[in-house]
Amino acid sequence: MNVNDQFQNMKLNTVGIKDISYPVKIREKSGHLQDTVAQISLQVSMPKRYRETSLSTFLNVLNKYQDDMSVSIFSKLMLEVKEDLQAESAHMEMIFPYFLQKKAPITATSGLMEYTCKFADGVGADEDFILSIWVPGTTLCPCSKEISDFGAHNQRAEINLNVKFNRFIWVEDLISMVEVSTSCEVFSLLKRPDEKFVTEQAYKNPMFVEDVVRKVAESALAHPDISWFSVGVESFESIHKHSAYAFVDSDDLLEVDASDK
Amino acid sequence: MNVNDQFQNMKLNTVGIKDISYPVKIREKSGHLQDTVAQISLQVSMPKRYRETSLSTFLNVLNKYQDDMSVSIFSKLMLEVKEDLQAESAHMEMIFPYFLQKKAPITATSGLMEYTCKFADGVGADEDFILSIWVPGTTLCPCSKEISDFGAHNQRAEINLNVKFNRFIWVEDLISMVEVSTSCEVFSLLKRPDEKFVTEQAYKNPMFVEDVVRKVAESALAHPDISWFSVGVESFESIHKHSAYAFVDSDDLLEVDASDK
Amino acid sequence: MNVNDQFQNMKLNTVGIKDISYPVKIREKSGHLQDTVAQISLQVSMPKRYRETSLSTFLNVLNKYQDDMSVSIFSKLMLEVKEDLQAESAHMEMIFPYFLQKKAPITATSGLMEYTCKFADGVGADEDFILSIWVPGTTLCPCSKEISDFGAHNQRAEINLNVKFNRFIWVEDLISMVEVSTSCEVFSLLKRPDEKFVTEQAYKNPMFVEDVVRKVAESALAHPDISWFSVGVESFESIHKHSAYAFVDSDDLLEVDASDK
Amino acid sequence: MNVNDQFQNMKLNTVGIKDISYPVKIREKSGHLQDTVAQISLQVSMPKRYRETSLSTFLNVLNKYQDDMSVSIFSKLMLEVKEDLQAESAHMEMIFPYFLQKKAPITATSGLMEYTCKFADGVGADEDFILSIWVPGTTLCPCSKEISDFGAHNQRAEINLNVKFNRFIWVEDLISMVEVSTSCEVFSLLKRPDEKFVTEQAYKNPMFVEDVVRKVAESALAHPDISWFSVGVESFESIHKHSAYAFVDSDDLLEVDASDK
Repeated sequence: MNVNDQFQNMKLNTVGIKDISYPVKIREKSGHLQDTVAQISLQVSMPKRYRETSLSTFLNVLNKYQDDMSVSIFSKLMLEVKEDLQAESAHMEMIFPYFLQKKAPITATSGLMEYTCKFADGVGADEDFILSIWVPGTTLCPCSKEISDFGAHNQRAEINLNVKFNRFIWVEDLISMVEVSTSCEVFSLLKRPDEKFVTEQAYKNPMFVEDVVRKVAESALAHPDISWFSVGVESFESIHKHSAYAFVDSDDLLEVDASDK
Repeated sequence: MNVNDQFQNMKLNTVGIKDISYPVKIREKSGHLQDTVAQISLQVSMPKRYRETSLSTFLNVLNKYQDDMSVSIFSKLMLEVKEDLQAESAHMEMIFPYFLQKKAPITATSGLMEYTCKFADGVGADEDFILSIWVPGTTLCPCSKEISDFGAHNQRAEINLNVKFNRFIWVEDLISMVEVSTSCEVFSLLKRPDEKFVTEQAYKNPMFVEDVVRKVAESALAHPDISWFSVGVESFESIHKHSAYAFVDSDDLLEVDASDK
Repeated sequence: MNVNDQFQNMKLNTVGIKDISYPVKIREKSGHLQDTVAQISLQVSMPKRYRETSLSTFLNVLNKYQDDMSVSIFSKLMLEVKEDLQAESAHMEMIFPYFLQKKAPITATSGLMEYTCKFADGVGADEDFILSIWVPGTTLCPCSKEISDFGAHNQRAEINLNVKFNRFIWVEDLISMVEVSTSCEVFSLLKRPDEKFVTEQAYKNPMFVEDVVRKVAESALAHPDISWFSVGVESFESIHKHSAYAFVDSDDLLEVDASDK
Repeated sequence: MNVNDQFQNMKLNTVGIKDISYPVKIREKSGHLQDTVAQISLQVSMPKRYRETSLSTFLNVLNKYQDDMSVSIFSKLMLEVKEDLQAESAHMEMIFPYFLQKKAPITATSGLMEYTCKFADGVGADEDFILSIWVPGTTLCPCSKEISDFGAHNQRAEINLNVKFNRFIWVEDLISMVEVSTSCEVFSLLKRPDEKFVTEQAYKNPMFVEDVVRKVAESALAHPDISWFSVGVESFESIHKHSAYAFVDSDDLLEVDASDK
């Protein structure tokens, strides 16, 4: 089989669009629809040359579903795109800010928190739906606390959790799983009693980036509906200009598990 | 094996630093050393808790080699980091702007072109060295040319080529391989006769993003020293606000090749 | 007056928050409310130390108005923030993607275009409301067209127009003013007859970045309700890796005008 | 004077290039030349249409000076660009990472710190040289410390200082002026005794963003060679997802000073 033959095979070459901005409504766990703006990318493998029809077909399907998007509807949309384009396979990603009301820990003052969320799905190839979230949290350095007479350096960290699941899981539940795995959760609005609480909470609960990874991974492993996950934690060190970073992929855990038996 | 046991196994958890900026000297094909600034990330899997010593050990090794970095030295550096840290495995990435003098096509006026280059390597796990480049080029739309009485929309595109190799390949040679695969190469300095040349060259040589992918892939497949590659082309469409994108991974080509026989 | 006295004077020090993400509804010219997500920054000058109350006061006012934001309501919101905080002055900025349905030039196929828009306003100091837009457009190089036997290099450009006005102007009208000032407008969805049209339109209408600046400036000078403007045009050159850029500020025009008489 | 006349006047329209990447050597206070990579923008006002010659003229001058750049040479380069282009005025900006060896506070372990630095200068218009630096530092919240039984939230902050001067000032001296104005300085390499020191130092020295602004401003006001400055401090709050921000411009201080007498 020569090179040209290879390229006439349609599995080999995906084409598409990258980073088109689009307003969408996301179905919340509460039942409400949340308005947000997504960056969307679509790649398709098609038997014929990619043409203008691809984009307009895709946008037509997107228009149809933009008013009520959720994990299950996203998968349906993917399938419809693939069928309408007569593609061998299709892959779509959609990343968006996601807002949740969150109550301060003591005064219960409510404020809007912003998270980042991504849906990624494929049909015909790479068929697993992957749900990704980026959640802010505080890390307080155990070493700094241990060696210092008072205080301990702490900072904002960003936790990225990616999951595949057997049964649908709400974004809200994954966010909670991550937030309780940090030295302290982050809030948008804190009154004085709340600020006292979060300061002391972080101090009582020192964690390295690898501790946060471990705690999130323990929760994910224990969750009956998660079939795969990876978690990365980046901590914007307050005493350095660089970040500390730790990461785990559940496939590596399972390998170890298997070889161990 | 329970969850805690899993996490005490040191393969499971990598820690490190992300995006530390560092001046480095890169060995050019010409033999000269080029001064540039790299963003460096390092991840290690270690039998004991990650400690302050990791970063200082790493920076010591980095200091030792920063004055003469090349693909082969980078691999040596990785090995030394792993040994000094007594790590099970280590992975390092270094991304930097890379400058080459490039002559205009007609007047041979010389100007400095900027490319982006990345070295990624691992020891103990993910041991393949991956060399990545991002190269600008022009794409001119075949459809637009065909249907229009005059003119054709064209635009800057960015081609990302990632390769593993059996034998060392110079970055300069990979850049050339990519540049000749576009509608026309991009230059930093063009006089009038050069501008006439590149305008007509692009017009005579219309290519969709998937055509550029195909041409780069053909060259990479034909190269005796490349053992794996992937190539993605993003075109910043002049008639749209979004990008067109195409991609291929050589593993998919080989699969097809195998199943075809 | 010594340094410490200077700093006790409250004009001297502004404090605030930067880049908080917030869902807002923007009033369209059509009368509809558009859902989008804004990045908001607020700075206030206050007689007493900045305290937790500032942020919660600000967010309370923001919550009150987020469901129906427009140029006029934004100014009202600013005033209320200043009064509730008993601030000497306050300054607020809000930047957001703004979406409009736009019809393709021949087939009238409708697609959603994304623009970027910014409201900036102050009370107590810097009291002018500034409306900013970032609009994509095509530029086709007059020099390249003139010297080449066929074709002409063209590319996406971004036009940034900032205005102060005597009487309210709709964002939609400013966007149109900019779009007609380019070699050709940019669209989100084009069928073949549309692509032929935009290709030929750009070819018939070559413009350097300074030509686009000039044309936008002529329209802005002729507009009875615009009291000040600046316009910058960045063109992502298809034959280079860098951008071409041109800029004008109406204050410089008026100076010349005055000195000329 | 009509609109077209206005635009034929050459003060009215600046053209140029944006964000070209270029390797440069910067003269350090130590006398050594530091290799780094700059993003350079140039705008010129010219009596005739901007032509290809502008860019090549500019690059020729840049090539001549790239091997030994300093504040004084930058100004000379600007003048030469203006003269070679026969421009009425020219404005140039150059932003680059700047690296300094910095010793840890107790063990004196040396590590390379990265700062960001910008030179901006004009001839024919906006003739003031402006030197800008961006310096990382730690802020520890006074309120959090006061109300909590133990600990205090702290985080990385970025301080941006911009100055005009009567007599040349070294970047190194401005960086020091900023670093001593934070709760604690940031380092690239810290051993355990150093980490204990910086943790306790920050705890003993709580500062809001406005306190950092005030302290930098006091030093700048007291400096005999600084004729104007502005300073902004952004703190990446560890307990929130947004930043706290404070700012002062010395012109506002002088106004108050004047009105006060």
